This record gives sequence, C-alpha cells and structure tokens, in this order.
Amino acid sequence: MDKKFVYFFGGGKAEGNASQRSILGGKGANLAEMTNIGIPVPPGFTISAEMCDVYFREGKIPQEVDREIDEHLNKLEQLLGTAFGSAENPLLVSVRSGAAQSMPGMMDSVLNLGMNKTTIQAMIRKSGNERFVWDGYRRFINMFGDVVMGIEHEKFEHIFQQKKDEAGVKQDTDLDTSGMKDLCERYLELYQKTTGESFPDNPREQLSKAIEAVFKSWNNPRAVKYREINHITDLVGTAVNVQTMVFGNMGSTSGTGVLFSRNPSTGEKKLYGEYLMNAQGEDVVAGIRTPHPIEDMRTQNLSMYDQILEISNRLEKHYKEMQDMEFTIQEGTLYFLQTRTGKRTAPAAVKIAVDMVEEGLIDRDTALMRIEANQLDQLLHPMFDPSVEKKVVAQGLPASPGAASGRVVFTAEDAEEWAAQKEKVILVRIETSPEDIGGMNVSQGILTARGGMTSHAAVVARGMGKCCVAGCGNLNVNYAQRSFSVGGVTVKEGDWISLDGTAGEVMLGKVPTIKPELTGNFARLMNWADEVKRLKVKTNADNPRDSQVARDFGAQGIGLCRTEHMFFEGDRIKAVREMILSKEETGRKKALDKLLPMQKEDFKGIFKVMDGLPVIIRLLDPPLHEFLPKEEEEIQEVTAEMGVDAVELKALIESMHEFNPMLGFRGCRLGVSYPEITEMQARAILEAAVECRAEGIDAIPQIEVPLIGNVKEFALNKIIVERVAGEMGLIRGKDYWVGTMIEVPRAAITADEIAPEVDFMSFGTNDLTQMGCGFSRDDAGKFLKKYVELGIYDRDPFQTIDQAGVGKLMKICVDNARKTKPQIEIGICGEHGGEPASVEFCHKIGLNDVSCSPYRVPIARLAAAQAAIKEKQGK
Amino acid sequence: MDKKFVYFFGGGKAEGNASQRSILGGKGANLAEMTNIGIPVPPGFTISAEMCDVYFREGKIPQEVDREIDEHLNKLEQLLGTAFGSAENPLLVSVRSGAAQSMPGMMDSVLNLGMNKTTIQAMIRKSGNERFVWDGYRRFINMFGDVVMGIEHEKFEHIFQQKKDEAGVKQDTDLDTSGMKDLCERYLELYQKTTGESFPDNPREQLSKAIEAVFKSWNNPRAVKYREINHITDLVGTAVNVQTMVFGNMGSTSGTGVLFSRNPSTGEKKLYGEYLMNAQGEDVVAGIRTPHPIEDMRTQNLSMYDQILEISNRLEKHYKEMQDMEFTIQEGTLYFLQTRTGKRTAPAAVKIAVDMVEEGLIDRDTALMRIEANQLDQLLHPMFDPSVEKKVVAQGLPASPGAASGRVVFTAEDAEEWAAQKEKVILVRIETSPEDIGGMNVSQGILTARGGMTSHAAVVARGMGKCCVAGCGNLNVNYAQRSFSVGGVTVKEGDWISLDGTAGEVMLGKVPTIKPELTGNFARLMNWADEVKRLKVKTNADNPRDSQVARDFGAQGIGLCRTEHMFFEGDRIKAVREMILSKEETGRKKALDKLLPMQKEDFKGIFKVMDGLPVIIRLLDPPLHEFLPKEEEEIQEVTAEMGVDAVELKALIESMHEFNPMLGFRGCRLGVSYPEITEMQARAILEAAVECRAEGIDAIPQIEVPLIGNVKEFALNKIIVERVAGEMGLIRGKDYWVGTMIEVPRAAITADEIAPEVDFMSFGTNDLTQMGCGFSRDDAGKFLKKYVELGIYDRDPFQTIDQAGVGKLMKICVDNARKTKPQIEIGICGEHGGEPASVEFCHKIGLNDVSCSPYRVPIARLAAAQAAIKEKQGK
Repeated sequence: MDKKFVYFFGGGKAEGNASQRSILGGKGANLAEMTNIGIPVPPGFTISAEMCDVYFREGKIPQEVDREIDEHLNKLEQLLGTAFGSAENPLLVSVRSGAAQSMPGMMDSVLNLGMNKTTIQAMIRKSGNERFVWDGYRRFINMFGDVVMGIEHEKFEHIFQQKKDEAGVKQDTDLDTSGMKDLCERYLELYQKTTGESFPDNPREQLSKAIEAVFKSWNNPRAVKYREINHITDLVGTAVNVQTMVFGNMGSTSGTGVLFSRNPSTGEKKLYGEYLMNAQGEDVVAGIRTPHPIEDMRTQNLSMYDQILEISNRLEKHYKEMQDMEFTIQEGTLYFLQTRTGKRTAPAAVKIAVDMVEEGLIDRDTALMRIEANQLDQLLHPMFDPSVEKKVVAQGLPASPGAASGRVVFTAEDAEEWAAQKEKVILVRIETSPEDIGGMNVSQGILTARGGMTSHAAVVARGMGKCCVAGCGNLNVNYAQRSFSVGGVTVKEGDWISLDGTAGEVMLGKVPTIKPELTGNFARLMNWADEVKRLKVKTNADNPRDSQVARDFGAQGIGLCRTEHMFFEGDRIKAVREMILSKEETGRKKALDKLLPMQKEDFKGIFKVMDGLPVIIRLLDPPLHEFLPKEEEEIQEVTAEMGVDAVELKALIESMHEFNPMLGFRGCRLGVSYPEITEMQARAILEAAVECRAEGIDAIPQIEVPLIGNVKEFALNKIIVERVAGEMGLIRGKDYWVGTMIEVPRAAITADEIAPEVDFMSFGTNDLTQMGCGFSRDDAGKFLKKYVELGIYDRDPFQTIDQAGVGKLMKICVDNARKTKPQIEIGICGEHGGEPASVEFCHKIGLNDVSCSPYRVPIARLAAAQAAIKEKQGK
Repeated sequence: MDKKFVYFFGGGKAEGNASQRSILGGKGANLAEMTNIGIPVPPGFTISAEMCDVYFREGKIPQEVDREIDEHLNKLEQLLGTAFGSAENPLLVSVRSGAAQSMPGMMDSVLNLGMNKTTIQAMIRKSGNERFVWDGYRRFINMFGDVVMGIEHEKFEHIFQQKKDEAGVKQDTDLDTSGMKDLCERYLELYQKTTGESFPDNPREQLSKAIEAVFKSWNNPRAVKYREINHITDLVGTAVNVQTMVFGNMGSTSGTGVLFSRNPSTGEKKLYGEYLMNAQGEDVVAGIRTPHPIEDMRTQNLSMYDQILEISNRLEKHYKEMQDMEFTIQEGTLYFLQTRTGKRTAPAAVKIAVDMVEEGLIDRDTALMRIEANQLDQLLHPMFDPSVEKKVVAQGLPASPGAASGRVVFTAEDAEEWAAQKEKVILVRIETSPEDIGGMNVSQGILTARGGMTSHAAVVARGMGKCCVAGCGNLNVNYAQRSFSVGGVTVKEGDWISLDGTAGEVMLGKVPTIKPELTGNFARLMNWADEVKRLKVKTNADNPRDSQVARDFGAQGIGLCRTEHMFFEGDRIKAVREMILSKEETGRKKALDKLLPMQKEDFKGIFKVMDGLPVIIRLLDPPLHEFLPKEEEEIQEVTAEMGVDAVELKALIESMHEFNPMLGFRGCRLGVSYPEITEMQARAILEAAVECRAEGIDAIPQIEVPLIGNVKEFALNKIIVERVAGEMGLIRGKDYWVGTMIEVPRAAITADEIAPEVDFMSFGTNDLTQMGCGFSRDDAGKFLKKYVELGIYDRDPFQTIDQAGVGKLMKICVDNARKTKPQIEIGICGEHGGEPASVEFCHKIGLNDVSCSPYRVPIARLAAAQAAIKEKQGK
C-alpha cells in the first residue's frame, strides 16, 4: 500500500502538523504540531482517520497497516529505550480517539496499555511504588474490559465498592496495595467469566484490539447522536493516537490538570483550569474528586505554575486562539498531552475575539469569524431580573452562564420525553455522563451535585450554550424517589426551579427575567459586523414592543409585520366574525369599518418605533375559518353574543372546513374574493402613515400581498391599494410601496412576470418549503426526524434552508426576477432569516435583506458579516 | 382615421374575403367570399370587429366611422337604385352580429330596418301585399324594441296573443291585414310607453342605434357565458353586417331555409336541411313552425332544389369543408344569406373527414386537424344496450346523437343547481332559448317538445356533443306542475328518463348501456393519427377490465396502475388495518404477507391483458389513515372484528390525524418509514411477472415510486426493490424497471439529480398543480371558479395544464433530467394526460408518452397527432 496511514511524533519533531486535521484528527494534528514547536509531549504515533473508514469497509486493519504500526512502535521503543513487554524497561501507551472535529467524551480511550505480569514486576521495580502499579493495572483491566470487550463499567465499579466495603474504606485512594492487587485478581476473574477468555497478556495483541475498539466507538450510539445534534456529516471516522503513558498518580510530585489559556466562561485573559496531584487525567474530567483551581499551584509550586503558564502562552500565540490543554506532571516533570481550541460561552467568545484584536493577535475579520453566530443566542435572551428577590436554596459552581427555569427531571430519558411534550425541563443529576447527551440537549439547564468546572456536565453545557450549575455539593439527590433535598427543602420531579449559571445559584420556582442589552464588546463586534456585511437585517415584529427590542438590537426595518394577530385581540375578533358571517359585501364592509380604527392604531404604534425605517406590512393571510369558534361551548357563546342561529353558525363552520387548509382559501385569495378586506387594510396602513407624518414621524409603509402564485393575483390586490392611495393623494414609490411574498413555487418560477409589477419581493421560506418539498410542517413530524437520520435531508429543512431544493427554487426566482427588473429588492422573512447557514445562502444568491425574530437580529448581523468575509476570502 | 372599418360586398365583388375573419367576423368574411365567387348574395357592408373594441373603449362610434358608413350606404343605394326612407324605392336592411368564431344565437340582430310611415306605403305599392308589409313592420318594431331598447320580447308576444284571441285566430299567419296594422299600432304604443320616446322614423337613426345595440350585445350575459364555456378569450368583439333585406314571406313563391352540405348528424354526403315557404328565417330557427325537410323541395320545385344543390356543392368545394348555409327565396329568386363551416356530431365529423380524404378534397393531416379531439368523447362513451328491451314512451327528432339518462328538470336554472349537487339531469323544455345555454351545458341530454333539426336546442346540443331529442310533438309539458305527460304517462321533476339522441327516442327510467367500439372510419382515422404522432399514448388502469377497454382503444401500455384501490377490496382492508395497528415490524410483515398473494393476482390479471406492453405500477400512495374507520359505528365494527380496544383504536386514529393530509405521511414516505410495504409490493409485482412469463405472457413490469421530492427518497425505495429482485435473480433494465413520479416541485427542480437514478419519470400533474400553485383541489372550489372568471387562470388548471406555471416547472424538469440522462423516458399520468391542449403541451416539451383514462385514449391519440401536425406546419 502506497498510502501512509501512520504518523510519528516525538524527539522534537513530527511527521504531521496542525494542518492535517482531516487525516490526523484534531488531537493528533495538535500533538504533532506541539512536538514540532518544542512543547514537551510524550512521544507516540497517530493512525489516520482514513484508516477508520477502511476499517469499517473491510472489517479489519489491513496487514500492510499492521506492519506500518509495527515500524512506528519500533521507532518509539528505540527513541525511549523501552520495549513492549520488556522485563527491564516496559513501554506503556495510551490509545485514544481523535476526530477532525472535537467530540468530547463521545468515543473511547484505553490507558496503561502494555501491562502484564512481566511488565508489572518491572514497573514495581522501577517505580518502587507497588500500589501505584496495581492501581494502574486495575484501571487498565477495567478500561480494556469495558472499551474492547463491552463489559459494563458498573460491574467493575460494583466489585470495587465491595472491596472497599470489605476493607472498610471510603475513598479509592484509601485502598492499600494488597487490596489493589486483590482487586486486579477479581477484575481478571470478571473478565474471564464474562468474555469466556483470559485477559490478553501480549501487549501487541492488547494494542491491536484497543485500536479496533477505538475505531468501532466512532459508531457507538452516543457518538452518532452527538454528530446528529452537531450536524457533523462530513467526517469519515476518527484517528487513533497511540502515545507513551505518563503518570500523574506516581505520588505527591505527580499530578494532572486541564487548562484554558483564558477563562472560557467570561473570556478574562487569565490562566484558567484545575488540577489534582497524585491523580490520573480521568479523575479530573469525571468529577470523582473535586480538583483545585490552577491558581492554587502558584502557592504550592510556583516554578511548575510558571512553566505551565509559559507553555500556555506559547500555545495561544502559536495558534492565535484560546487553547484548551491537558497536562500531566510525572515525578516533577511536566508533559502536555493535548491542546485544542477551547470551547467557550458566548460572552467569553465575544470578549476573547475583541481582546485579541486589541492585542494585535488577530484582525477584525478573523474576530468576526471566530464567533459562532448561533451562540450569540445566549447573550440575547432574558436574564433573571436583578430587582426581584431570589430565594437561593443552593450554591454550586457557575459552570455555564445563563438563566433557565424548568421542571425538574432526573434522567436524560425523562428529559427527552418531557421535552417532546413541550415541557421546559431542568435535568438534575448527581453527575452527567456521555450517555446523557440527548437529554442535556433538550433541557433548559443542567444541575449536578458533583464535578468541577471542567466536569462532563460543565464542558458539554458550555458547548451547547446551556445554563449549568455544577458541583452543587450539598444537593442530596434521590433517584429512586425522584426528588432532591437541599437546605431542608425537598424538590420533586415536575417542580419548577430556576438556575443562574452565571452566579452558580439554584432557586425555587420560576424567577422573572429581563431583556438583555447590546453593549460593550458585543456592541463593538456588531459594529464591525455592520461594516463588512452586505445584507440588510430586518425583523419580524407585529407590535411596538417587539419592534423596539429589534431596533435596539440593530434591526434596519421590519421585514414582516403580520396583521392577523391584531385580528384576535380583545373585541376585534367579534368584528372579524361579524364580517365572516355577513353574506353581502355591505355587511362585511360595516364590520370592517369597525376594525379600521383599531388596525390604524396598531400601525401607528409600529411606525413611531420604526421612525425612518421601512416597515413591510403583510395583508391578512390565514384562512378565515381560523377566526371562527371551534368548540361547542365557544360556539354557544358566539351564538349568544352575536345573536346568530347556532345551527346556521355550525353550518357555516362546516361549509368553511378545509381538507388542506395550508393550500386553501387564504392569503391573497381573500383579497381577490373579498376586495373590501384589502381595501380596509390598505386604508388603515396608509392613514396611519399619513397621521404619523403629520406628527413628524417618518413612516415608510410597504404593503405586502401574501401567497401569490400568479402575477394577476398580485395585480388585483395592487389595484385596490392604488385606488385607496389615490383617493388620499399618495404616490406609489414615494409615499408607499406594494410588494409580495414569494411562498408558492409557481410564484418563484414565474418571477420574471411578477417582478415588473411589484416594488419588492420577500421569500416566505416556511410555506415555500412546505409546498416545494410537499410536506406540511404540522404533519411532517411523523417522518422528518427519520428523514434527517437517514440523511435524506442533512438538516431539518424547516430549521435551515434546503439549499439543494428550496434554495434552488429561490435562486431561479432571484435570477428570473432580476431578468425583468434588475434592481428589485428581494428579502426573506421566513424563520430561516435568523439561521446562520441560511443567512449565508441568502447572501450568496444575492438577496438584499433578511428578516428574523427580534432576538435573532444580532445573530443575523454576524452571520451576514461572516458570509461577506467568506466571500472576500473566496470560500 | 387612416384605418378602414367598413367593407362593401355586392355587385359580384367584395372589399374583403374569407381570410379576413378576425376583422369581418365569420359571417362577414363569408359574405364577401361568396360575393367574390359569384353566389347570389344580397349586397351590403360589414363594420369590422375592431370597431366593436373601439366602441367599448370610447362609448360611441367615432364620427369618421359614421361617415365611412354613410359612404358605403350610398354605394349600396346606388348599386340597387334604392334609398333609405325613399317613397319610391326604399332600402331595407338587416343588421346582424358576426364574430370571428361562431356564437350561434348569442348576439342580437335587427331585421327589416328602414321601415317607417313613408317606406311602408312605398312597399305596399311595390309589393301589392299589404299584410306582408305590416307583418314586417311589427317584426321590426318588436326586434328593434327588444334589441335596441331592451323591451322584453314577452311583452310584444303578450300583445300578439291578446290580438289573436280578440280576432279568434290561432296561428300568426291567420291574422289579417287590419289585425296586423292594429298590432303595429299597439306595438308602437308599448314602445312609447316603455321607453318614453316615440319609435324612430329616420332609417339612418334606426341604423346607428341598431349597430350600437349589436356591438353591445357582445357583452350580454349569455354571450359572455358562451365564450366562457367555449374558452373563447382572444376576440375583441363582433363585426356588424348591414345587408339588404330579402323576404321569404312575400307569398307562396317566397320561402327560406337552412342547409348543410352533408348530414351534420351522421356525416352522410347528402344535402340536409329544412325550409318553410312564406316565412322569414327566424321562423325556421326559432322552431315556431315545424319546417319541411329539404328533400321535399325536389317534388315541390325541382329547379329551385337544383339551384340550391349546385350552390351548396360549389361552396363545399370552394371551402373544402362541410357548409352550414341559409337561403331565402324572394318571389322565385334565390339568395344565400350566409355560409359557414357546419357544426357536426363526432360521428359525422369522423365520417366527413374520412370521406373528404377519399374524395381527394383534403389530405390526411387536414382530416386529422378537422376533428376536435375532445368531441370524440361522444364516440367513446357507452351506448344503450340494444339487447335490453326499451320502453319508448315518445318519439322525437334525432337532433343530436348519443345516449343519456338523468333526472328530469324543467328550467336551466334547476339544471345548474342540480348538477352542482352532482345530480345527472335531463333538461326538458317546450323549446330552448339562448338563455338556457348554461343549463344545457350541465345536462346529460336535452328534450324539447317543439322545434326541428335546426332548432336552437338541436344546434346547440350538437355543438356541445350532447344527446338531444327535439320536436317531440306529443309531449305535454306543464312548467307550473313541473311535469310532462306523454302517452298517458306523467313524468315528474326528479324522475329518471333516458334519451336516445341517435334514434330520437324517449324512455322511462335508466336504460343500461354497453361500451362502444373503435371500428370503421373511426379506426381508419385513428390509424392515420398513429402514423403521425410522436407521443406514445398509455392508459391509467387499475384492473384487467379497464386495461382491456384501453387496449381495445389503442393504448400502448399502462402509464399508471394505482395499487391503493386493491387495498380496499373485500377482506383486504382487514389485513391492511392489521398492518397499521401493528406496533412492530414483525406484526406488519405478518399482515403484509396476507396481502401479498392477493396483490400478485391483481397484477397477473393486468399483465395478461397488457401482454407485451409496459405496465407502470405505482407503490402505495395515500396516507395510511385513509384505511382506518372514520364513523363511530365503523370503529365499533372494527373493534369487534379485530379484537382491538376501542379506546386504543380511537387514540391511534387521533394520532394519525393530519392537518394537511395532502402534504402528509404518504407516497414514498411510507416506504421510507416502513420498508416492508415496499418490499411486499415489489415482491407481488415481480412474482406476478415471473409467473406470467412462465405462462408465455410477456409481462413488462415498471415499478413507480410516488411523491419523491429528494433523490434519496427514491434511492431508499429502489434499494428495497433491487434487493427483492436480486433474491429472485431478476435484472433491472431487462426484467423490470424502477422509476418515479414527479409530483413535488422539489423533484422537478432537482431532476438532474434524480434522472441518473431512475429508469423513467412520469409527471403526476394533479399533485404538481396542487403544490406548484399552492391550492388543494378539494378546497380550491371555493375560489377557483372566481379565479377563472377574473382571468387569473385562463382555464381551470386541474382541467388543462397551467402552461405558464406548472408547465414551466415541467419544462425545467425535462431539461434538467435530460442534462444528466439524455435518453430518459418521461411521461405524464395526471388527469391532464387525456386533455387535448395538455397533450399538445406535452408534445412540445418533448415528453415520450401521455397516459389517460381508458375512454380518453383515442382523444389523446388524435390530440398527439394534431400536435405533431401543428409542429410540422410550424404552428
């Protein structure tokens, strides 16, 4: 085989480097890079991720690659003067996964590989620390048994607990050497009994099996689920890193820790991390013992602290990015085992990006590209109202910032079930594990009793932008009774609690929230975004309150103001029903006359807030039957209130029933059949604008006709608007504008006919997706999830634009429209308008603006900037 | 004004000719042509149809045109030596409408124009027939009053009846001179009283008003309705023909008649028509007196008959088409007043076309173009079973052939209302009038008590291809009691009767029918069609019976065999429900196993009939909830029968409810979620094919995946089919084929991705229209009619392909598909596949085949041939 599958690193240089992530995985590429720049990294080699793909296709590791592994193993042994299975100087290695994208905790690792009867004795001789060696062996058997042979971890834990009980000790560390040795015997028995074979003694055989097991773990359910949640679809597999073991648990001069070059929660430029002396790395990550803040090391061992700080700084400067690192100290010698770009909260991401620009480390474009637009969501949602007194019942670590309220559940499965029922839940666990990933994803927040700032719960929650309070030690969780107690209070499953992830506080009940503001670093970043973006960002808002929020967040106008909500409010529904019940135009007009002044006030309120910015107002869209009563009781009420006959009302409701209301009598079809509705709305909008202008407000009304499929449907509605405007002496293109939504595939296809008639177009991608793909949003739940699982659609097309299909239709529309009206303004106002990938697509096909919900405006601004930067960079 | 608006004809030559239909109208162009070829035509002039448009825009006839009319009037007077209002030799004219397309009886005419006190005396002197002159005057006042001033015709009729009663006479002809004169006085009084002005005496003023009235009649409701029914959308208005009057009612040597150069009912090459001596033309058409067959004239006046025959033959040879003519004999002199292409029944159309080819008059292409494809429908529907004894209760004229059964109604309004309720109706009238056109259109057949073969009822019915028995003299119709009696039997509104339009028979009840056959001239014509057409014509059939009908009609395969109907039959629904109720795949498979042998038998039956022709079988398409019981009673039955819990069953039904089932869990989505359904169907189809082949039958199974929007949906289903086929040792592309329907806009848009995966594609234009235009067929009834009225769509897009929208999508699909797979076979199997305009469109965009219901196969064959001929002719 010509292709190289194994890459060596060690002795100050490596065969790979940081640019080879797709082959070496993130971890492997960085181990190579660190080696190359002189960081003390235990030597080893990386088996390429391409091998993982080969392994799945062929079902085994090809002989040639086995030989390549042998060669690299020899090189490693020669470099270190050790050997696999040596009775003198045995080689011990770790075998770890590492894909091109980080999937923390999702795949398996095996440590201490190489131990057997011979090497154990050699290690005891060399270390003089028998307990340490047997402790290492029991860890090895446990991990190998679990990862390679699928023996449940709990079985080992159970034996360990038995042993501790027999020995009358509580902590793992309290078990003495003979206890450990005996534990190893029992583990080996379990292994023999469960697998039907004895534990492999040959290190090379151990290695082969471990490598295969790591490859296999690529497709374990939690890894698959993680990729699904994170939309990781373009990777072929994981690489495998085989690295010389170093031990943090060789006594008091040994230790291990995890580090961030800046604070991943706040972004503060200060070393941030935790460590434990006399411990292995997994002890820190798993949250079994609560570690010390890295700052403590300053007082304990300043020179070690300085070494760590220096390497951390070097790595950050080298990568020009905040680093997430792991280190181990073996008998006073420092090793770095891993470095990678650190995950961070949104506030941290913003601060770090802005700080690094000021430090001259990166430019503004890079800063803008560094922030995941969706992540800003964390900054844009309500926080707990500080003026409201909070009943804090427990204090934990501020593991992931934010505010969350929800009903308590105790298992990830319950979280998923409840969330499917539209319940907001808080997942409460003693500690979380990778199996809980699905439940964490659907929870509002996570609360754990154990584990530190770098525990599984904390890391995953920060990655998800979810509020998390971790290590809340005095929380007494009782899974069996589905409750927890703290400070004399017992909280049961289903009770409401609130979490403040920024303060690490747990409160009873639902605590009120206030809206966030766009200030400081965040505001600066947004200004940079505005300087580079080409797309205008507008908002979807139906009332002055939402309009104000959006304007504060930088919205450049209203891209969609729906008018139907206004029809439901208070007494209005009565007038609307009166209109529907009228058999003649005169009756309908009478009812509409009642609505006119109310609608006008609505629009005036919005124009005032949006002073000087354009406001697109959509004419009535839903089918009229939505305004009629549905339940018997409600029908009786309406009957009494409006003095209509119940039988007649029911007959009307029956006659207005639709088989497929989505494709029924709605949108512009209402205005075509009942021109008086369009007339009233046009009058309300235009009178509102005129009255606002009289007050010195610059109202810019843009009237939008929904659901057209045929240019003539638009024209018939436009004529009405123009007539009303003409009566008021208003001029189209100067005092007001009339445009249309593009939601029906036929409209997209015939945009060349439509463009000359309209002043603007706006994609309604929700409906365009429904009609384009042929599935109703309300009904697609039955199969769409499976469709995404099967890869029919990469992602839910209602969440992100289906670029290959619906997007193609949009492209056809834009191209056709510009053929007959090159300067036409085209926007989007479906819910996709605030989704970063969709925003990028809109930029690419040349739209003029996107419109989204008020709280997503900054996300869209950033996404629009990123799209422009990518274009500049030719990506 | 430079433009010429008035065209003279007379004195052996005319300013216009037959090619100027769009300007002169059909009647005017033919009057000019007849004049040019030496037919005796009373001279006159034609005011162009373009003037009608000008008239509607400007609200009056421009002065210049008035002058142009004056000039032509002078020319006419000089030619004849007569003058308007002359006391010596007065000019009398008729003023008649005449659009480019014939709209028989839809617009108004005024005859005898020019009569006043002076000219009446001159006419009496000249004719020596005082009664004739006063009779003419009362007709003129009546027509002018009705047409120009809108005085209801009934008011004149009422006075006439009074007068007859007073005079003690029954027939109009029995009223003597003084009675007629008195009648004229009373008519003038009525005119004065109703309009507030006296009857105009000035002939030029009479003419101007009459011309305007004819123009106005273009937009009278029945003319608008006629154009709507006949999809006449491209005309600007009617021309007006002003022509010298000739009189058929000047005594026993005068007469009038209507003629067809061949029999319009059977196509027989023999003069066909009716005449009345001493009558005006409207007496024949209106069916007031029953006229004599033209054959009678042979014995009465052979030389006149020979003259008529000679001119008829000359006109037919000249136009190379069967002619519909009107003539008048004035005191022994023959005049032809009109000739036009004659309407004919489908059998006549076929016979005439074939005969004319044999006579060397036209070529085959012309013959094929002569038949309106839709008209063939008349030949393709069941006839009364001749072996069943019929109870004929009345005999009338065989006015329009065919067999019809329906419930009796007595007004056109009732016919429309009942038909809207899906009732089949027979419209029974004493005589029909142009106002009845809408009711006639929705009736199965028409029965009249009065009127001949060329009466309004007969002419219109033949034009519509509707069965009609006319002039059924002993029918006693009582409108007030909503019944008719005949031969001692009383038939009430709502009773069933049957009409045999070919035999002129009326029968009680519903008479059974048999299927028609494709023989004789029809078969020859179809063979000619097959020789020129490029499209293959297939059929939509779900069972052996329909397949056989279609094959007999020349279908070249099955383009769509739906399998869901098979799921409903007999016991099968039980197994289907068992499948749906199964929570696990194993349960579903068990239920499907029960369906497999039944489905297999279905397919074998179809393969046997279609031996050697391809059969496209579509996999299950409808949402599964369609198979579940709906009503409480039915639910109870299923509960009892299947031993399931009613609560559970209802919960399941509830959970399967869909908001928009059209866009729900159906089509290929079923096979994606439940692959076992696709597997069972694939197995049934392929096993059926294999078993048929073992019997020597050439089964050609083509499996079709419905409702795909994404190539991956197709691929997932194809894999299943290929696996099943693989297990049976069958090879795709040799033993079976797998293709897809294109119904979802996204599929059309991404056809370039889909084409390489599929063996064939077939447009499902029903769904493509629903999703493309965004309206559900079930719900669009609420607004689509209005949409067509408003011209938003020219025609109902569910009846004929919306070429500008859905058609554009089809074109995009075809072009995209052929980009990646140039030779791909693409067809259509929506209901549009049998609609001539849609077939032509399919030909144009390069489809390979169309598929339609069995009875429309010959229509599609002819339409396909016509499309090919048009293409050849560069149209």
